[in-house]
Amino acid sequence: MHKQQNILIIGAGLCGSLLALRLGQRGYNVTVYEMRPDLRTNDISAGRSINLAFSDRGNKAMTLVGIEDKVKELCIPMNGRMLHDLEGNTTLAPYSGREHEYINSISRGQLNALLLDEAEKHKNVTLHFNKKCKSVDFEKTTALFQDYHSKNEFVEDADVIIATDGAGSAMRKSYFLSKKFLFSFSQDWLTHGYKELSILPSENGGYKTYKNALHIWGRDSFMLIALPNLDGSFTVTLFLSFDEGEYNFNNLTSKERVLEFFGKYFKDALELMPNLVDDFFENPTSPLGTVKCSPWHYKGNTLLMGDAAHAIVPFYGQGMNASFEDVTEFDKVLDEGHQDWETIFKVYEKNRKKDTDAIADLAIDNFHEMKGHVNNAMFREKRNLEMAFEKQFPNEYSSKYSLVTFNEDIGYREAMLRGRAQDKAILNMLSDNELDLNDDLKINLEKVKAATEAILDEDRVAKNLKH
Amino acid sequence: MHKQQNILIIGAGLCGSLLALRLGQRGYNVTVYEMRPDLRTNDISAGRSINLAFSDRGNKAMTLVGIEDKVKELCIPMNGRMLHDLEGNTTLAPYSGREHEYINSISRGQLNALLLDEAEKHKNVTLHFNKKCKSVDFEKTTALFQDYHSKNEFVEDADVIIATDGAGSAMRKSYFLSKKFLFSFSQDWLTHGYKELSILPSENGGYKTYKNALHIWGRDSFMLIALPNLDGSFTVTLFLSFDEGEYNFNNLTSKERVLEFFGKYFKDALELMPNLVDDFFENPTSPLGTVKCSPWHYKGNTLLMGDAAHAIVPFYGQGMNASFEDVTEFDKVLDEGHQDWETIFKVYEKNRKKDTDAIADLAIDNFHEMKGHVNNAMFREKRNLEMAFEKQFPNEYSSKYSLVTFNEDIGYREAMLRGRAQDKAILNMLSDNELDLNDDLKINLEKVKAATEAILDEDRVAKNLKH
Repeated sequence: MHKQQNILIIGAGLCGSLLALRLGQRGYNVTVYEMRPDLRTNDISAGRSINLAFSDRGNKAMTLVGIEDKVKELCIPMNGRMLHDLEGNTTLAPYSGREHEYINSISRGQLNALLLDEAEKHKNVTLHFNKKCKSVDFEKTTALFQDYHSKNEFVEDADVIIATDGAGSAMRKSYFLSKKFLFSFSQDWLTHGYKELSILPSENGGYKTYKNALHIWGRDSFMLIALPNLDGSFTVTLFLSFDEGEYNFNNLTSKERVLEFFGKYFKDALELMPNLVDDFFENPTSPLGTVKCSPWHYKGNTLLMGDAAHAIVPFYGQGMNASFEDVTEFDKVLDEGHQDWETIFKVYEKNRKKDTDAIADLAIDNFHEMKGHVNNAMFREKRNLEMAFEKQFPNEYSSKYSLVTFNEDIGYREAMLRGRAQDKAILNMLSDNELDLNDDLKINLEKVKAATEAILDEDRVAKNLKH
Repeated sequence: MHKQQNILIIGAGLCGSLLALRLGQRGYNVTVYEMRPDLRTNDISAGRSINLAFSDRGNKAMTLVGIEDKVKELCIPMNGRMLHDLEGNTTLAPYSGREHEYINSISRGQLNALLLDEAEKHKNVTLHFNKKCKSVDFEKTTALFQDYHSKNEFVEDADVIIATDGAGSAMRKSYFLSKKFLFSFSQDWLTHGYKELSILPSENGGYKTYKNALHIWGRDSFMLIALPNLDGSFTVTLFLSFDEGEYNFNNLTSKERVLEFFGKYFKDALELMPNLVDDFFENPTSPLGTVKCSPWHYKGNTLLMGDAAHAIVPFYGQGMNASFEDVTEFDKVLDEGHQDWETIFKVYEKNRKKDTDAIADLAIDNFHEMKGHVNNAMFREKRNLEMAFEKQFPNEYSSKYSLVTFNEDIGYREAMLRGRAQDKAILNMLSDNELDLNDDLKINLEKVKAATEAILDEDRVAKNLKH
C-alpha cells in the first residue's frame, strides 16, 4: 500500500491511540478525531473503568510499538485472586503455577496518555480532540463531526476510515441503520450492572489490603472485586443484578440498606471503605453488554476495530488486551503486502473475528466462575491440580486461564476450545472418581491429556462429519 | 384475567390470526390491525414463501382451536427427502422409521385465510386491513398506525398490545430504538440468499415429479429444494451465496449463465422448468436471517410473539410451527390463572425463549445438513441406522429430526440437547468402528443409548459444576 495514504481514525481511546501510533510508525498520514477533551490536560473519568487488567496479549502490542518498558512502570503485578469469604478469611489462588505468569493492574488514563504522547511524536500523526463523530458515509469514505465547543459540523474525507470509537460506535450505527448491506449485529445485556467504588490509601499512603492480587468477594449471585492503583488506593467494583434477588441496584436506595448489604456480605471490605455510602450514591450504575457484528468493513473504505467491532464484558480482564491484539493482528496483515485495502480488511476479519467471538463468550463464562465457582469444592480441586501441573511440568500444561491470558501466540479460539476440553475432562474425571489426587502427578497429567484429546477429537467428528 | 380486557394484535399473518382466534375463543375483546390488504379478497404474494412445512407442533395448535380437520384438507404429506444427485438419480430418504410420522406441504395463503375466517366468526374479534403500524409507545400501551389508502395516521390504545408483525416488527424496532430499557437483540444474516422458482403442473394437471416428498438437490455450497402444491405445481427454492463461489446471485445476471448453472448442477430439475429463466429474473432474491431478542415484553403492557420475537431460517421447516407453538404455550400460561399480564408475559418468556433459541440454532445446523451432509457417506449410515431403530423399536428411539418435528410434547431445547448427543454418539462410534452394522440391531441401539447418556452426563457436569 502507498504510504501516502490518508487514514482517518475515529476515537483516541486505548485502541485508537495505539493504532495511530503503529500506523504512524509505518509512515501513513494519520488523522485522529476524538470526541472527548485531551485526557492529558483534562481530568475526565467518563464513567469508564479507572483501572484495567493488562496481560501478555496487550504487552505483545506494546513490544510491537517499542514501549513495553514505559508501560511496565505503570503496572502493578497481580499474582492471583485473593478470595474473601463471608467471615473475611482470605485465600490467595494463583493465576498460574508458573511464577513469571501474572496479570497487572494499570490505569486507563495513564496508559492512554502514554500512547497519545508516543503517537504525537510522529509528524505524520495529527490528533484532534472535542470532535464528536455523528455518522460515517461509508460509500463516500467521509465522516461527519461536530465540534464540542462551537457545535459546528464538518465533513472529513480520507482514503480509509478506521473507527475505534468504542462500544457505542457511531460508524457501527451508520452500518446498522443504513440497510445498504447485510449487517449482522448483536447486543446482549447481562441482567447484572456494575458500580465503581473505592478503597482509599491508608493515612501513610500505603495499601489497606494486600496489594498484589485481584481481590474477589464472590457471593454466587453477585460479587465485589478490587484492583490496586499506584497511589495506594483500590478501585472496587460491585457487580449486582438490577432487579433480582433480595438486594439489587433497584432497591439499594437508602444509606441504611447499602450498609446493611455490605455489612452482611462484604464485612471485611466495608471496614476498609468508610467512604462507601458517598461513592455508592455519587457514582453511576452501568450496564454490562456484549456486542458482536459482521462484516467489520465496508469494501476497502471503512473498518471497525476494538470495542467498536467487539465489545465484551470485563470478567476475563481481556477487553483492552483484545483491542491491542487487534492492532498486532492488523499489523501482521499489513506485512503480507496485499495490494488493496479491501483484501487487507477481509483477511484481517477472517483471521480475527473467530478469536474476538471466542473471548466474548469466555468473558461471560468467567462471570459465573468468579462470582460462584471459585467457592465450589470441585472447582477448587481442579484449580489445585492445574496449578500443580503448571508448576511441576511447566512446558507440558497450561490451564484455560493460562492459555487465554499468558499464551499470546495462540488465538483466543484455540485457547477456548482446548481450555474448555481440559476443564470438561478434569471435572468429569473428578466427578467419576477417575482421578486419585494422591496418585503420582505425572500419571494424572497423562490421564488429563488423554481425556482432553478424546473430547477434542469427538467434537471434531461431530462438527465436521469426516469426509 | 378479566375477559373484558381489550387486546390489540399487530399483524394478521399466521401467528396473529391464530392468536386472535384463540384469544377470541377465550372471550377477550380482540382487535387486529394488518398492514396488507385482506388476502382472502386480494391476490398478494408479498414476496414470502408460497408454501411451508406443516408438522406436529403446528398441528397441536390447530387441535387447540379445533380446526385440525379443516387444515388437513390443505395438506400434502411429504414422507421424506427425495435426494437428487448430479446425474438425476433419486433416493427417497424417509423422515422417520415410523410410518405415521411425516411432514406436510401447505399453502401459506390458504392456511392464513382459514385462520382469519375462523377468527372472524367470533363477535369479539375485529379485523382491520391496510393499517400499517409505524411505532408502539409501550409505556402508554398505544400504537401508531397509518392507513394505506388515506395515509392518515391514528393512535389506538388497549389494555395489552401483542405484536405478531413478523421478522421486521415495528414494535421490536420501538423497543430497540427507545433505549428505555436494556434490550438484547441480534440479527444474523447468512451469506446465502434465496429465490423462489416453480415447476408448473403437467398438461393434464398432474405432478411432474414425485408428489409426496420434499425434493432436495444438495450441492455442498448451495442447494435447490421443491415442495408440492395442491394444484400440481411445485414451489422451488434456490439457496445460493450472494457473492462467493463460481456461481452466485451477484454473477447470475444473464439468461445463458443461469441455464449453464442449472444445466451443470440441476439437470433433471431444469428439464421440468421451461419457465426457469422468466421466474429467475422476475422473482426477487431475498436474504436469510435469524432474529433473537429479550425481553419480549415491556412490563404488562406489550408482548412480541412469533417471528417478531424469534425469526429463524427455513431449513428445519419449523418457522410457522414454532410461531403456532407460541400460541399453544401462551394459552397454557393463561390457563395458570395469574393475576396480571406482567406475570403472564414473564412466565411465558421464561418457559418459551430457551426453546425458540434452540430451534433458531437447529435451523442453521440443518442448512449444512441439507446442502451437504445428505450426500455424506457417514451421515447416510447414521440416518439408515436411526431409521432402522425407529422402525424396529418405535417406542425406544427418536432421531433428532423426529424429536424436533414429531414430538410436540417436548420442547425444542430438550430435543436439541438429546438429538445432538445422539448424533455425536453415533458419528463417533461409526468413526471409531465401534458400531458393527451387521450386529444385532438391539445391541447397537443399547450402545447408542449408553453413549448418548454418557455424553449428556458429561456435558451436565462440565456446565453445572455439581455442588
